[in-house]
Amino acid sequence: MILHLKQSVTAEQAAKLAVEHKAFHVISNNTQVLITGSGVKEVPAGLDAFTDQSWVFPNDMQLSARSYRSETREVRIGNVTVGGNTGNTIIISGPCSVESEEQIRESAALLKANGLTSLRGGCYKPRTSPYSFQGMGLDGLKLLAKMREEFGFTVVTEARDATHIDEIIEHADVIQVGAKAMYDQGILRACAKTQKTVLIKRGFGTTLQEFVQAAEFVLAGGNENVLLCERGIRTFETGTRFTLDLCGVEWLKHHTNLPVVLDPSHAMGYAYGVAGLTRACVALGVDGLLIEVHPNPKVAKSDASQQLNHAEFEQLLKTIQPIASSVGYQIV
Amino acid sequence: MILHLKQSVTAEQAAKLAVEHKAFHVISNNTQVLITGSGVKEVPAGLDAFTDQSWVFPNDMQLSARSYRSETREVRIGNVTVGGNTGNTIIISGPCSVESEEQIRESAALLKANGLTSLRGGCYKPRTSPYSFQGMGLDGLKLLAKMREEFGFTVVTEARDATHIDEIIEHADVIQVGAKAMYDQGILRACAKTQKTVLIKRGFGTTLQEFVQAAEFVLAGGNENVLLCERGIRTFETGTRFTLDLCGVEWLKHHTNLPVVLDPSHAMGYAYGVAGLTRACVALGVDGLLIEVHPNPKVAKSDASQQLNHAEFEQLLKTIQPIASSVGYQIV
Amino acid sequence: MILHLKQSVTAEQAAKLAVEHKAFHVISNNTQVLITGSGVKEVPAGLDAFTDQSWVFPNDMQLSARSYRSETREVRIGNVTVGGNTGNTIIISGPCSVESEEQIRESAALLKANGLTSLRGGCYKPRTSPYSFQGMGLDGLKLLAKMREEFGFTVVTEARDATHIDEIIEHADVIQVGAKAMYDQGILRACAKTQKTVLIKRGFGTTLQEFVQAAEFVLAGGNENVLLCERGIRTFETGTRFTLDLCGVEWLKHHTNLPVVLDPSHAMGYAYGVAGLTRACVALGVDGLLIEVHPNPKVAKSDASQQLNHAEFEQLLKTIQPIASSVGYQIV
Amino acid sequence: MILHLKQSVTAEQAAKLAVEHKAFHVISNNTQVLITGSGVKEVPAGLDAFTDQSWVFPNDMQLSARSYRSETREVRIGNVTVGGNTGNTIIISGPCSVESEEQIRESAALLKANGLTSLRGGCYKPRTSPYSFQGMGLDGLKLLAKMREEFGFTVVTEARDATHIDEIIEHADVIQVGAKAMYDQGILRACAKTQKTVLIKRGFGTTLQEFVQAAEFVLAGGNENVLLCERGIRTFETGTRFTLDLCGVEWLKHHTNLPVVLDPSHAMGYAYGVAGLTRACVALGVDGLLIEVHPNPKVAKSDASQQLNHAEFEQLLKTIQPIASSVGYQIV
Repeated sequence: MILHLKQSVTAEQAAKLAVEHKAFHVISNNTQVLITGSGVKEVPAGLDAFTDQSWVFPNDMQLSARSYRSETREVRIGNVTVGGNTGNTIIISGPCSVESEEQIRESAALLKANGLTSLRGGCYKPRTSPYSFQGMGLDGLKLLAKMREEFGFTVVTEARDATHIDEIIEHADVIQVGAKAMYDQGILRACAKTQKTVLIKRGFGTTLQEFVQAAEFVLAGGNENVLLCERGIRTFETGTRFTLDLCGVEWLKHHTNLPVVLDPSHAMGYAYGVAGLTRACVALGVDGLLIEVHPNPKVAKSDASQQLNHAEFEQLLKTIQPIASSVGYQIV
Repeated sequence: MILHLKQSVTAEQAAKLAVEHKAFHVISNNTQVLITGSGVKEVPAGLDAFTDQSWVFPNDMQLSARSYRSETREVRIGNVTVGGNTGNTIIISGPCSVESEEQIRESAALLKANGLTSLRGGCYKPRTSPYSFQGMGLDGLKLLAKMREEFGFTVVTEARDATHIDEIIEHADVIQVGAKAMYDQGILRACAKTQKTVLIKRGFGTTLQEFVQAAEFVLAGGNENVLLCERGIRTFETGTRFTLDLCGVEWLKHHTNLPVVLDPSHAMGYAYGVAGLTRACVALGVDGLLIEVHPNPKVAKSDASQQLNHAEFEQLLKTIQPIASSVGYQIV
Repeated sequence: MILHLKQSVTAEQAAKLAVEHKAFHVISNNTQVLITGSGVKEVPAGLDAFTDQSWVFPNDMQLSARSYRSETREVRIGNVTVGGNTGNTIIISGPCSVESEEQIRESAALLKANGLTSLRGGCYKPRTSPYSFQGMGLDGLKLLAKMREEFGFTVVTEARDATHIDEIIEHADVIQVGAKAMYDQGILRACAKTQKTVLIKRGFGTTLQEFVQAAEFVLAGGNENVLLCERGIRTFETGTRFTLDLCGVEWLKHHTNLPVVLDPSHAMGYAYGVAGLTRACVALGVDGLLIEVHPNPKVAKSDASQQLNHAEFEQLLKTIQPIASSVGYQIV
Repeated sequence: MILHLKQSVTAEQAAKLAVEHKAFHVISNNTQVLITGSGVKEVPAGLDAFTDQSWVFPNDMQLSARSYRSETREVRIGNVTVGGNTGNTIIISGPCSVESEEQIRESAALLKANGLTSLRGGCYKPRTSPYSFQGMGLDGLKLLAKMREEFGFTVVTEARDATHIDEIIEHADVIQVGAKAMYDQGILRACAKTQKTVLIKRGFGTTLQEFVQAAEFVLAGGNENVLLCERGIRTFETGTRFTLDLCGVEWLKHHTNLPVVLDPSHAMGYAYGVAGLTRACVALGVDGLLIEVHPNPKVAKSDASQQLNHAEFEQLLKTIQPIASSVGYQIV
């Protein structure tokens, strides 16, 4: 249950009430908000006198529920706002992994030349084998920060586990919680304590409800700047790397108030399908897209088969604005 | 292996060679064609002298392979041709089940008013429970035939099992092989012996390769008029009815030469997501769409939750032509 | 809803009432039984006076529900009865496909030498490719019938589609409805009209409830001799051919009154795991096992990798009786 | 590739060679071992002179491969050794969560009364909702440590994320890496630096190969004491909580040299199926079982539906020793 407390209730009082009732306490739009488990279906006796408005829910998707807030939340990605009435579909691009200064600068230049503002690149790679390239770590983060300074970019990068989450929060503008780290409460609880934007990727074996509940960890912990990202689920089909769940995206848009970003590159796993899928995502009406692009995909140290080269990427960009316009969005 | 025999080889000779080499024999574009299993990697000794051209394949997707024919095949749906260079995306609509003359006429009138030409409706319903509505059977087929005569429509309807496949072939213009019947060789072999267009739906537990191989039964049996239809696969996610596999569609477009139709209604299972998914499919660039629409979805005898009402359907139609244009297609 | 009518109601009256109330009518243990859809939660007005006892259900698993009949049904497989209080775990073995008289006689001799009574072998193979071996068809059925006469075996063989279901019913003692044919109402309805035992395999993409509802087609159509067979479902894991769902078997045993047979060979797909899985199935307490065995698996025309050779099979048989005894069963 | 260096090579030399060749370096049975990625198929030029024996692999399952070590590794769980030729199947039991001193002492007394030695209980619960019971944390760990001192138990408990992995390593005898944390390199790398036994649960969306590669992080990092635990994968079937993958267990036994533990409680999700599944697992021949048991499952703060009560647990224990004996194992 969510309770909006009366304006007369102070933050201190609200915090005390939260402890008494084992509830989460956040302040949103100058309102003191308490959140209990969804099992609570009536305003508890001791809170009645302090409560202005309350909402009950069939499950633990509460702060994220469209039945709580009917408008999609506005969330900032650097200087761009998505969600709300903005109609923005933001393109977040760059290589799978930061590999060298030369490589990341080439990527940055590509984005700049195409008027894009958000650069992604992995530094701590959640590889499934210890014998694969594991990412440049802190050195990579510093290269991304350098690109931010040179080009004015918003930097999006991934936390692999809780041991380096502080570094990520320090250096990134948008903290990406990867598909394999999505249940990691060490990461989620740290993200709840910053006000930086958090992009949570759906685990490939994760139900939609569990996915949204991961966002609840951040929302209920005090950070409202959350984006959901669908990047493909694991199914019996192995002809493609994963299966992009656009039915699930419609479900998210229908049931939740959070902006949704899509990652066709990881879903497909092969460059040949990325352009088509990107166009499909744009036509669906989404708040953003993550697209992997690499100066020379063949020599990429990770995800070589799915990254577009620069020519393919520019070709793709040309085709999506008209589709976006058809559904009332603009590419930014 | 596929072998194109020399022009000097007669149909009778080709048929004899096929028997000798345990191969399929079809005549395509006036060429005698033999097809062996894909395990054959070299032209067999006895066929060498008769062979003009040959193709080897890594698996049993042969006649359907893009490596055999680089252009998407042209297939007729009534007066409309899809595939090839047509750029047509055909809308095939109507109710899940034919329920009454009044209901199917209302549906037909809706299509007519919107310039559409292809009417779908199930008469033999492959329900999973014996206690559900099983369809009107032959009476339903006759109602569809009546609508064809009145409105000039192309009729698309489904064979549930081999016991009534002859009736379906007689009354339908396009024979739909349903997801649950996709492995049914009684149906597939009968479809191979007609020249009517066959729309094969992917089983919800079927791999892409198995799906395409179902088409090979029809192609190798002598009918080249085959459409593939992706309608959602079964995954762990139960928030939506199925998971529409657009990655798989990109795979089909990349690896096969068959036109591809999409069915967002069955995949989503809820009307709220059908419009968005339809737009995504159009932007992907596909040859057709199956969309369920019902005069009054709430009282539908099957699939009540996923059928659009007439207003929703007309609203949707208005939005898709601009998207189709953006990707070089036109809605027909 | 299931209704047991009063003893005073004749079969003719019951049949008439069934038509009036759109119910199925069967006679079971000299009782006139009507079955409506599970949506009916109260005895309909017009049936009240004729009804002795009634059961309501949360879904369309009705005749098969343990809440309807608390004991597992007894079903005959030739001279052996499984289910009820028999404690029998029957071994049904033989090659994947009948390939020749020599091959099937060797298999038969193996079973005979080991005191087994049920021979399986496929004649109409539901292959996913038209270019694979499709089975010997009627010739194979005749070879199986010959083995029955020579050895006194019970013959278990599969219907691929409805076009040859009459042949199967004529020649088989137990009609196997394969995983790919499980939704085939042409087959299911034909099986409902015979009194021969029907073994229904779960489709690899089929939920437990759908699976049991396939049995309802046979039960409600008038044939009570139904066995369920779990043979592995399709999951994201491709290291093995399928995933044997023993959790699902426990669900079936808990929720239904039908005997359950397991097929570890198809689930595993590799001979190395069949013995271990067979032992696990026996320890679970099941009514039967289907195990593929071939005189020379390496040259088998189908499923070569998963069939045991004769030595492996005999070795396995020696190990399972003690396990069966531990759980109160005997191997037959 | 794995390389066993010559006895003349010192640890310092080996460490240096490892750096030069970007290889992992461990010392196993007094042998200096280098491990490169499996892409390396020939002994590198610079290592030739130092290498005594080498193994190549088709993928990154190397130290865990049965082709490297044909015997199952021996791993200690407190005073009990599993694997090797021990024939031990260890029962690890206790409640899902440590909830109070009274509850965990009751559980401990139950194990003691039944001659068991290993107590499990979760203190950091990886719940999918922030509004659920999250575990007692460090207080719970101290209660487990208290039980160890009182009863002489081996304590098995789970690390949820890397923020408290040091606490877990300090207080647990066996560190459980949960299904949701299985990709967490913060945890895996910490586990590699201790010599405590690590039990890695398979993620419910994780392929067998990825699962084994998680173990490679620990093995290649220097800790050989690794157990694999299958606990059910997520499939389309929702009648049970997960699907216990016994085919996968046979695969693991065939391809790897690591002991395998099974967790039927989490797979099934319902107490009614746990006993049957446990018996199946024992008959398969496994190295251990995790079984959840609670003094009063109805009031359990997590996983209430799947925990056995004490009577059910004792009843189960009585039935498994004979099965274990049938397959050459003993329950410990």
